[in-house]
Amino acid sequence: MSEVRQKAALAKGAAAILNSLSTEQKNAALLLMADALVNEQQSIIAANEIDIKRGRENGTSESLLDRLTLNENRIAAISDGLREIVELPDPVGRILEQFDRPNGLRVEKISVPLGVIGMIYEARPNVTVDAAGLCLKTGNAVVLRGGSAALASNRRIVEVLKQALESSEMPSEALQLIEDADRASVDEMLKLNGLLDVVIPRGGASLIRNVVANATVPVIETGAGICHTYIDDSAVFAMASDIAFNAKVQRPSVCNSMETLLVHETFADQHLRAIADRFLAANVVLHGCPRTIALIPEAGEVTEQDYATEYNDYILNIRVVSGLDEALEHIRQYGTQHSECIVTENNEHAARFLQDVDAAAVYHNASTRFTDGFEFGFGAEIGISTQKLHARGPMGLPALTSTKYRIYGSGQVRG
Amino acid sequence: MSEVRQKAALAKGAAAILNSLSTEQKNAALLLMADALVNEQQSIIAANEIDIKRGRENGTSESLLDRLTLNENRIAAISDGLREIVELPDPVGRILEQFDRPNGLRVEKISVPLGVIGMIYEARPNVTVDAAGLCLKTGNAVVLRGGSAALASNRRIVEVLKQALESSEMPSEALQLIEDADRASVDEMLKLNGLLDVVIPRGGASLIRNVVANATVPVIETGAGICHTYIDDSAVFAMASDIAFNAKVQRPSVCNSMETLLVHETFADQHLRAIADRFLAANVVLHGCPRTIALIPEAGEVTEQDYATEYNDYILNIRVVSGLDEALEHIRQYGTQHSECIVTENNEHAARFLQDVDAAAVYHNASTRFTDGFEFGFGAEIGISTQKLHARGPMGLPALTSTKYRIYGSGQVRG
Repeated sequence: MSEVRQKAALAKGAAAILNSLSTEQKNAALLLMADALVNEQQSIIAANEIDIKRGRENGTSESLLDRLTLNENRIAAISDGLREIVELPDPVGRILEQFDRPNGLRVEKISVPLGVIGMIYEARPNVTVDAAGLCLKTGNAVVLRGGSAALASNRRIVEVLKQALESSEMPSEALQLIEDADRASVDEMLKLNGLLDVVIPRGGASLIRNVVANATVPVIETGAGICHTYIDDSAVFAMASDIAFNAKVQRPSVCNSMETLLVHETFADQHLRAIADRFLAANVVLHGCPRTIALIPEAGEVTEQDYATEYNDYILNIRVVSGLDEALEHIRQYGTQHSECIVTENNEHAARFLQDVDAAAVYHNASTRFTDGFEFGFGAEIGISTQKLHARGPMGLPALTSTKYRIYGSGQVRG
Repeated sequence: MSEVRQKAALAKGAAAILNSLSTEQKNAALLLMADALVNEQQSIIAANEIDIKRGRENGTSESLLDRLTLNENRIAAISDGLREIVELPDPVGRILEQFDRPNGLRVEKISVPLGVIGMIYEARPNVTVDAAGLCLKTGNAVVLRGGSAALASNRRIVEVLKQALESSEMPSEALQLIEDADRASVDEMLKLNGLLDVVIPRGGASLIRNVVANATVPVIETGAGICHTYIDDSAVFAMASDIAFNAKVQRPSVCNSMETLLVHETFADQHLRAIADRFLAANVVLHGCPRTIALIPEAGEVTEQDYATEYNDYILNIRVVSGLDEALEHIRQYGTQHSECIVTENNEHAARFLQDVDAAAVYHNASTRFTDGFEFGFGAEIGISTQKLHARGPMGLPALTSTKYRIYGSGQVRG
């Protein structure tokens, strides 16, 4: 039996036990895990140094090496992340609906763990702990497949976490790390129907594309965001400028940042120069439509391809539009249904935008950067779902649950 | 552009309009559709006769021909089905959650249509109307791909329905029928990410297997059910006998019928003979474990393969078990997480069964045959989901919705 299948089977066996643990038992296990990470930090850092050294030899970029690096401060933060998960309410075991049927049957719909979750991610060892904490808190077993560049770190981290579980009531088999660095191990996970209940990819566009294209196990797709801000003619200049600037510049590398600014022609005539100057001062490269370039000669020519690109960088498309309809049409054509914003003082326009735009999060007069589990007050974030099934938008702990019906009878049979 | 891609694109365009229709507008359209089916029944029956004739020439079985056949009574019933959908509450536009953040943002989570639904099904023309009604009621556009054996019927039905929509406020493009009878058109649908938001297969095991194995579009899996009834030692004989008999015999061809009866050894010694006699009198073929055969010599030997088979027929496996633990283990091994039942007077055993068994519906003292949208009081049934994402168990109209967050700000930016 392959490593993947064997470990998934162990996880599935553990899932049956996890499902019956109390919130207190799960929290106690998470706290032991948090303690163990700090207690064992020297061996984790030593393992991490192996990954860093190999990365350096392979010419890995400094920014990737930085993401990969663990030190005492980072391990403390990762450990604290587990403690925060402990504080969150347990989404499992809640009665979501309850009703009686005329034949006397009582039906209850309760929240239950998903079962076994496959997590596929890149070379960020913090995700190993975060994913483990989120899955175990929700009573799910988890099969982790991190990027091979972090393998030594992940292996030691999972050893430490599993040792911690040995002194808890949670079976250590609930936590599995796939060590096979070959890409085939990912492909095998994607087809493990019957052993994995869901696969969640966390990482860049190509990782997610591969998972979506090849998985037969249900997937929760996260990630891609081509987000727009539309400034209507009635928008207040200062508010519009602040929201647009924040949406692009506060953290361009993330999925909820803005890629294209749509500006009403009247507003553009009056204010686009000032807004563009602010972007230029922040070293944002501007790509503009012809009407934008007429106002902002510094902008390069925008292409169709630009409108369809998630830059995640200090690059912005600007398009002058004739009004709300053209803005809606642009978003329909190029948006990825992630986060979209209208800045306007016209409540009718706002209502239409919020009704018509088909996206996980639609904003009136606020930055798209708020699409985030923590900003929404969920206390955790599994990711931001960009699909419409199961969960959409920022996912907190309830996204890692399913439901089951319990039916209480007294001998009822169907007539 | 292929027929599939072209029609899906038309449906996607219509979905944007559907999303903004009121409940009254959608219901008015459904009533026009219901009327049109009855008004045009002669042309529908004429088209159906083409399918029947071709089916007969191709040697189609009488039972399949019966499912395919339309007549005035059946068309009236199908039309009434649409009227029943009109009566159901609209699941779209409900505010599911609402909360204010410390920074003053107001967040609303509202229910929205999924968008465009792909329905893949077999040669049952009633499904064409039923699926259209369910999807349109929930504000979704729908791309239908029925079995080629019903193509003439489906073509005429969809023509009639689309003509009815012409005099409604619902765009007729919301309803699309794929007429390409080649299997490749199904395969193309399964990979239409970006145009289809979800694919729902309705039909036999091989159809569903193909969809799950090949779809890159998210799927709602329905169907397979290897369901068990466990009779505990404390069960009341008459109740246990009635529940087991109903679960097997009332309608063996459906997914929530029982395939294996698990009986506590003490109960078996006392009562299995009487229960088996009832099954034998109903012409149920029995496959038994050695202990069963010792009590019921008429039973054949059960195999591992039998335990893993969904008979959907007058065949039943019987296994004598030492108690609850062995029953739970059997269900864990062979169950398909559909519907499972314990018959017992021991509340502790019932509670453990309902907690530990991982299935869409778990019953105490009632027949598994109740796993059904109508029996649960949903007033409609899209199907019975056997996956854990999005929806599990009988699916009513809300299963055809997604959510979106609307965020109301006053200039908030992220710090």
